[in-house]
Amino acid sequence: MRNLYPVIFIVSVMFVLLSIFMTLPVILLAGSEAPNAMAFAESAAIVWGLGILGMAATYRKPRDLKPRYMFVLTVSSWFIIALFSSLPFYLSDLGISAADAFFEGTSGITTTGATVLSGLDDMDRDLLIWRSILQWVGGLGVIGLGLFILPYLKIGGSSIFKLESSDRYDRPFSRFSTFATSIISIYATSTFICATLYAMTGMSGFDAINHAMTTVSTGGYSTHDASFGYFPNLSTQWVAIVFMLVGATPFTALVVLMLRRRIDMFRDNQVVVMLGYTLGLGVILALYLRINDTEEFGPGLEHAIFNIVSLVTTTGYANADYLQWGPFAISIVFMATFLGGCSGSTAGGVKAYRWIALYGIMRRALDRFIYPSSVASVRSGHDTVDEEVLEIVLLFFTAYILVWSLLTVALTATGTDFVTAMSGALTALSNVGPGLGDIIGPAGNFAPLSDMAKWILSFAMLFGRLEIFTVLVLAAPSFWRE
Amino acid sequence: MRNLYPVIFIVSVMFVLLSIFMTLPVILLAGSEAPNAMAFAESAAIVWGLGILGMAATYRKPRDLKPRYMFVLTVSSWFIIALFSSLPFYLSDLGISAADAFFEGTSGITTTGATVLSGLDDMDRDLLIWRSILQWVGGLGVIGLGLFILPYLKIGGSSIFKLESSDRYDRPFSRFSTFATSIISIYATSTFICATLYAMTGMSGFDAINHAMTTVSTGGYSTHDASFGYFPNLSTQWVAIVFMLVGATPFTALVVLMLRRRIDMFRDNQVVVMLGYTLGLGVILALYLRINDTEEFGPGLEHAIFNIVSLVTTTGYANADYLQWGPFAISIVFMATFLGGCSGSTAGGVKAYRWIALYGIMRRALDRFIYPSSVASVRSGHDTVDEEVLEIVLLFFTAYILVWSLLTVALTATGTDFVTAMSGALTALSNVGPGLGDIIGPAGNFAPLSDMAKWILSFAMLFGRLEIFTVLVLAAPSFWRE
Repeated sequence: MRNLYPVIFIVSVMFVLLSIFMTLPVILLAGSEAPNAMAFAESAAIVWGLGILGMAATYRKPRDLKPRYMFVLTVSSWFIIALFSSLPFYLSDLGISAADAFFEGTSGITTTGATVLSGLDDMDRDLLIWRSILQWVGGLGVIGLGLFILPYLKIGGSSIFKLESSDRYDRPFSRFSTFATSIISIYATSTFICATLYAMTGMSGFDAINHAMTTVSTGGYSTHDASFGYFPNLSTQWVAIVFMLVGATPFTALVVLMLRRRIDMFRDNQVVVMLGYTLGLGVILALYLRINDTEEFGPGLEHAIFNIVSLVTTTGYANADYLQWGPFAISIVFMATFLGGCSGSTAGGVKAYRWIALYGIMRRALDRFIYPSSVASVRSGHDTVDEEVLEIVLLFFTAYILVWSLLTVALTATGTDFVTAMSGALTALSNVGPGLGDIIGPAGNFAPLSDMAKWILSFAMLFGRLEIFTVLVLAAPSFWRE
Repeated sequence: MRNLYPVIFIVSVMFVLLSIFMTLPVILLAGSEAPNAMAFAESAAIVWGLGILGMAATYRKPRDLKPRYMFVLTVSSWFIIALFSSLPFYLSDLGISAADAFFEGTSGITTTGATVLSGLDDMDRDLLIWRSILQWVGGLGVIGLGLFILPYLKIGGSSIFKLESSDRYDRPFSRFSTFATSIISIYATSTFICATLYAMTGMSGFDAINHAMTTVSTGGYSTHDASFGYFPNLSTQWVAIVFMLVGATPFTALVVLMLRRRIDMFRDNQVVVMLGYTLGLGVILALYLRINDTEEFGPGLEHAIFNIVSLVTTTGYANADYLQWGPFAISIVFMATFLGGCSGSTAGGVKAYRWIALYGIMRRALDRFIYPSSVASVRSGHDTVDEEVLEIVLLFFTAYILVWSLLTVALTATGTDFVTAMSGALTALSNVGPGLGDIIGPAGNFAPLSDMAKWILSFAMLFGRLEIFTVLVLAAPSFWRE
């Protein structure tokens, strides 16, 4: 219990912050209608009350956090905030079940973007804003997780490749707070620029702000059921493509770019590899569409690039029902749901740095089968990758597949059909959004699934967001042994 | 070129042996009809001729095989023998395409059991016997591969766990030839007992011999389109269950059992784990069938156990269309297609010893996240597992998933639908047989797929049989550098 005091304290502080955010939808709509003002007020009051209570109860208690309890803090804060961020949905006039509300809140805060809500075009604006705020704040949380928490827990993250080597002494930010401030200001600035460009290319102010928040966070919630199918303007789509990619770029690289005006970004293999597989898949898909006379090469390329970028960056927007493009497109889209963006960004999935590491390990393994005595290290660009990191990457990939399999089995046990279960588990674990099939495909909606399936999928989103091991560690018997 | 002489010589010797086997279907049917006698005679002549030619050409050449060229020998012998073993199908009165014939031959020799042929009940008996002979000989080849070749190439296999530790000095066979003879005699004896029991429980003599050959080799070819649905007799089904499991047991353990009358088998974790997950999945599936009122518990358990054993041992018989049992059954069946039997047996798949190793690595990884300084080794039963072996297991699992993904994409590019492609690639790579969906499910047939899809799947069967790395190594640029 003693070790839980600091955990409770920090989560309580987060609750007070959350309660402030909960008042924003009503404040931002000041003057116009906010039909769910009561729901937001009640939610804010409950969360604020719990936060104050928790802070008061633990204020005078010892507050030293054992390193091990960082796992408890990380996991419990994400789970609990996901739970309470769904309160406004539950209390609103939507009249949805607790499972639906939790699904929507979790999908928001984890920047997944899968939704159980339809009729978005006519939905109360305060609820739409709340969805966007959740993703925007969630995106910031994901960056923080990837840059500070996961590397500390040795589970992965951005610092592994860059900060562990030369940049440790070369970084342009001397103190943590400068760095954190830079990140937040870059994130906010990107959102602002994105919103402005959206508005300039024809979106309404409301749509521009909401979509900017869910683009830069690679979240994917839209204010229209048709997602980006509602905005056929080509320039709008390219704004989305660019800013989804910005959201999937390591924010350390963006900080260096801003503070030093140095394009360090392309020295980072991650960005090059991510852009490489995105462009590669986009072109292949466009050629396939051309060969099958589905679309001309030009529009086909635009559709292909948009949807591949959306999947690789784990955003989840769609501007076409790509499941109608035939089996090859379906398998490409399915594989893209695995790939993921860069670490230290808002993206999910397996992520580019792990693919670089896996490629290096495989190359080395083949060499070792041929020359058993060969000794070689795995390189990423100019850096040598630590052996411990390589092992964790292999373990992560294996755990990813095994957890995905178990989630699939669990979903089918609730009666979900196999393809929906398999692709649903994957899209949740990768924090992408849409899956395969009529129900959860880009033209569909998660609403028809059973409540139990929604609980499992919500859990999967958090599991994926916390990069699996953070949660699994808590299940190890040795964790709770003193 | 110099290094290829011994490869050509050994493959040529195998060709001469293959030509002898090719005469067997006609000889065994002596007295009764052998409508494709000409096809077998021509095939045997071609293969015999090529073998003699190859032997003559390389007889006086240097015959020292560089260790590295063991990869070339292993891969080329399997590919070339798969190719030529399909000659009788191609030359027969079936009138099938080269792709179909190669698929059927490869599926036979790799003991996969997927088929493009239907109307088996009325098919020429010489062709049916040839299918069974291919699987029986293939099974022996697989045992040899797992016990002698793969451990030598450091890619995996049975000796890793048992022979590397105490058994190295304790093994009951002092010389290789004694050991090889024991394996062959146990394999033949098991087949003989199995055939006898099949006949005693009601099969015709012809069916009993054919099914015994494809049971002990965990191949899965049947002489009836309905597979074991044709033999509803419960005792027949239990004979099949027992001998599929025998085929999936490490033959080293069976040798110990026979020579020493010692049940060493259950000291081998592999067998316990394989029986564990087989029984576990069988019981879960039976309960599910009961809960959904699909079947009573008794018959449901029998159906569940039979089909799970068939999948786990990578045989591929079916006695029911389990795809009609609902989504949970489909996902269980799909996962079972991964699991696999034991190494050093005729089974394929990921295999029990790798699951033991993966479990151990995961446990240790979680402990290390909690106590970063902890130093522990991974154990299997009483033995410590070598770190190098652990790394290869992780690499194997990762490569398995990646190769599976690429095969799926390739299959969809030929127009195969996604579910058929994904499950087809898996069932081929695991050497199981049936996949998911109407086309390649247990009630279906691979015939409707395109020729290109059949080439890809044939390649996948060989890829899986050679445990992936044996083939991948040949694609490494460093392999061909002198």
